[in-house]
Amino acid sequence: MISEYFSAYEDLNIHKLMLTDTVRVKSYKDAILSNKELFKDSIVLDVGAGCGILSIFAAQAGAKRVYAVEAAGSLTPMIKKVVEDNNYTKVVQVIVGEMESVIIPEKVDIIISEWMGFFLLHEGMLDSVLFAKKYLKPNGIMFPEECSIFVSICELPHYFDEWNDLHGVKMDEFGKAIRLIAQGKPEIGYVSKDYLLSDPLEIFRFKPLESDQSKFRKITAKHVVSAKRPGKFQGVCIWFDVKFPIPTGNVVLSTSPYGPETHWKQTIVVLPHEILLEDHEPVAFELTFFRMQRRNYQITFELHETDGIEHPTPCDCHLARCRVIKAFLAERPDDPA
Amino acid sequence: MISEYFSAYEDLNIHKLMLTDTVRVKSYKDAILSNKELFKDSIVLDVGAGCGILSIFAAQAGAKRVYAVEAAGSLTPMIKKVVEDNNYTKVVQVIVGEMESVIIPEKVDIIISEWMGFFLLHEGMLDSVLFAKKYLKPNGIMFPEECSIFVSICELPHYFDEWNDLHGVKMDEFGKAIRLIAQGKPEIGYVSKDYLLSDPLEIFRFKPLESDQSKFRKITAKHVVSAKRPGKFQGVCIWFDVKFPIPTGNVVLSTSPYGPETHWKQTIVVLPHEILLEDHEPVAFELTFFRMQRRNYQITFELHETDGIEHPTPCDCHLARCRVIKAFLAERPDDPA
Repeated sequence: MISEYFSAYEDLNIHKLMLTDTVRVKSYKDAILSNKELFKDSIVLDVGAGCGILSIFAAQAGAKRVYAVEAAGSLTPMIKKVVEDNNYTKVVQVIVGEMESVIIPEKVDIIISEWMGFFLLHEGMLDSVLFAKKYLKPNGIMFPEECSIFVSICELPHYFDEWNDLHGVKMDEFGKAIRLIAQGKPEIGYVSKDYLLSDPLEIFRFKPLESDQSKFRKITAKHVVSAKRPGKFQGVCIWFDVKFPIPTGNVVLSTSPYGPETHWKQTIVVLPHEILLEDHEPVAFELTFFRMQRRNYQITFELHETDGIEHPTPCDCHLARCRVIKAFLAERPDDPA
Repeated sequence: MISEYFSAYEDLNIHKLMLTDTVRVKSYKDAILSNKELFKDSIVLDVGAGCGILSIFAAQAGAKRVYAVEAAGSLTPMIKKVVEDNNYTKVVQVIVGEMESVIIPEKVDIIISEWMGFFLLHEGMLDSVLFAKKYLKPNGIMFPEECSIFVSICELPHYFDEWNDLHGVKMDEFGKAIRLIAQGKPEIGYVSKDYLLSDPLEIFRFKPLESDQSKFRKITAKHVVSAKRPGKFQGVCIWFDVKFPIPTGNVVLSTSPYGPETHWKQTIVVLPHEILLEDHEPVAFELTFFRMQRRNYQITFELHETDGIEHPTPCDCHLARCRVIKAFLAERPDDPA
């Protein structure tokens, strides 16, 4: 057992991080246990079961059978013991192997999975979850049900201003170096909501039930946002929310800067140079997520001329055209703009 | 420049962590800048200068010359630019190479260095600082001047109790696994002061000025501590403080659970099984730091019979002998016990 645990050392540390992410575990628990009418006597498939906690929630919610599929064989003794300790050996059946390789012996009513990676897609397991739909009955249900990616332009003092005077020392050169390194790949870190310069913009939304893998090869978002206050545009903050099917409420697992911290943090694109923005100044951009390898994504971010991309209707920016449209719509609130 | 920064990626991320550790940077700044009478016109050696911030503090405090020795050649352009940006090119001279290999052209009045590793010694640079003393003038001064290691027995709910009921699921097996892994090497993490079961015990103190490397091959501490409340003895928390020479105050850089968080966090020895302690129950232990390789230490922790190790005088434990001695001493406060 010891050697198994040691070989799973990395895994266990990652699982520890995920299991102690209260926002993550609590939202799955709430979503599953508030849906007992759905889970009662149902057949459930847990894709990427990890240490089995979601499978236990499903069993607690009344599932007749739960197939807990986990690719990391080193975790098998752990899941089995967790299932045993919670007295669900008759409900939860552990299946070791990649979702794409194993055989589930029957169709299922519900797929549950915590598959989300950084900025939803990076190092996530969406492919396996989409693959698993072949076992889903018609009218089957997926937890989570709907996913969204949001962006906001933001200030990033930890990459810019802080280095101009670090306890009385000019460390601009250090700031420059970490910004340069950040051009190589997006940074994972927390962004305070106070640093956000625009309202959150939803750039991508999908339901796993209605999506296939081709949708996720390349995702492009072209938008105009406007500054909600004067500020230093130093980067872009990206995060995601997922929603669960819930008749009695609205359970959202949010990784937003407006909510409590999660282990996903936010994803940060750092600009090489800051851009000073006036109040209501528009910023036009194109953000692309490219799939490089199976589970790895790259992000590109480009600024555009503000007249090169269509502004939203109404648009909060200070350009005359948008101000006229906004005023016009405000006078005619019933207009289905 | 780009490739240099990229090759130093790891370095830069570690330096970012250290430079944004406010407790660390502020205590060095306070120690150096409150000692202008010492630094004025002095010759200073900065061992392991990193990005050069301590050298700049020394220059700001009035040093005539500062030798900034840094082994990581990839950081050289960075330090030089930082020195230039702060207008100290005439004061700070950057020397690239290991302390043990470079030549400092003159004797110095003061050695400054932030050499401390986890639990003071692990992955630290004490050897290089002790080596550097060969350049120190008689009556030379070292920053920091005195170092102490402390321990306290503690509760560790993140390794024990939390897993008994994780949002309604028994995950004891997971707790067992992470405790098993923790037997392999000490964990680095924060321990809340509320989890400490004994008062801090100083187990090791030394002045770098008066110490040579032989002192640090093996450090053994045998002690008895007593529980300051009933509790679950689940581990040992280790931390360090360093003190600076300061005539006008007392600057201490502390990594204690009683102070604000630092990037060193605390070091945690996790017991394989918890031990229930009564109020004032004594715990006798032997803690050893072994140097394995040049900069790496291993910790062993053993429990002893409480009558196998001498108790302190007075001792807070509930054993009859200690209670009698304590009562006796309390009646005779002038007794030089």
